Amino acid sequence: MDRRRIVGLTPTLIADAGLELVEGAEPFGVNAIARKLGVRPSSLYKHVSGLDDIVELMRGRLVERYRTLPADQPWDAFVEDVVRRQRRMYADHPALLPFLIGKTITSPTVIDAYDDLAVALQSGGFPDDEILTLVGMIDAFALGFGLELASPEQVWQPEAPTQLFGKLLAGSQSGPERVERSFELALDVLLVALRDRLPSRDQE
Amino acid sequence: MDRRRIVGLTPTLIADAGLELVEGAEPFGVNAIARKLGVRPSSLYKHVSGLDDIVELMRGRLVERYRTLPADQPWDAFVEDVVRRQRRMYADHPALLPFLIGKTITSPTVIDAYDDLAVALQSGGFPDDEILTLVGMIDAFALGFGLELASPEQVWQPEAPTQLFGKLLAGSQSGPERVERSFELALDVLLVALRDRLPSRDQE
Repeated sequence: MDRRRIVGLTPTLIADAGLELVEGAEPFGVNAIARKLGVRPSSLYKHVSGLDDIVELMRGRLVERYRTLPADQPWDAFVEDVVRRQRRMYADHPALLPFLIGKTITSPTVIDAYDDLAVALQSGGFPDDEILTLVGMIDAFALGFGLELASPEQVWQPEAPTQLFGKLLAGSQSGPERVERSFELALDVLLVALRDRLPSRDQE
Repeated sequence: MDRRRIVGLTPTLIADAGLELVEGAEPFGVNAIARKLGVRPSSLYKHVSGLDDIVELMRGRLVERYRTLPADQPWDAFVEDVVRRQRRMYADHPALLPFLIGKTITSPTVIDAYDDLAVALQSGGFPDDEILTLVGMIDAFALGFGLELASPEQVWQPEAPTQLFGKLLAGSQSGPERVERSFELALDVLLVALRDRLPSRDQE
């Protein structure tokens, strides 16, 4: 049923087939994608240069779905939305991480999304020489909390007595609300820290 | 050369063989571990119940290497050390993540390490009903910055003009120092936020 004959093969169709494979925990690679699309691997190479190219296209397709488009919102509302959506993106696709991490990002869509974030921070008043540092911080933040969200409902299950941890886990703090509280608290801390760090414009 | 005949097979030896496979980007599974140890898969099942069990043992071995042992340090020095070491652990083993994430943690060593963190936060004065939230936040934090550290030296490479991002990347902010600055800034923000959140003892 998955074997479809694609007449008009495009890089986008190839990337989407790759995403479907990874999301379905199926074997992933050029041959697997070709099989899924019902074409020969050699046909794929007319549209992409290889697996790295496909992974970059997949990254682009994914970011397209989750990116925050700049509107007239203030810089901090933009950052907050970026963090929330990126977190959701990672939480929804933990299986993709091994392919994405460790690879230089070249996808124009993804670079565009980072460009928007850099511009938002600049327009908020952050100095140019600090923006990449903040972008990296926002990135790591969304990634960490996204993976935390991808954890099973029961993150910890002690099988022997503990000094305190087991008692806390047996209490009402456990479960999905705890994960949300950790994230909301951290997001608040991040935004407060960014606002505090902003050079005051009134004094200029 | 890797095929060794193990006379005294133990869960620890099995876990370490698994770690070596994943770290070497080799195929990973019960059969691969058995092959690496030069034994039959059925021999492994005398010591472990299956792949989930092995992954949990691997998690324990890894945390053993990187965990912070409680000494007489203040709670914030303990938290800082936990974050720094956990970040390093994730950065050194990104290939292990797909196996670790999404699985309930049962390893006694790992539960012990979390128990130490919970006790440190409690002894610092944090109320019991907030500790798991903070533990989750510290966890996500170390994970996100660990994976950021596992990124290639050149994280972004725009192939088309950008509004601002390309100019920033061409500047002096790029490279490993930027990654360290992002982390140090974020760690500082985290610790300040935790200290601010602490109920004042002087007023008791």
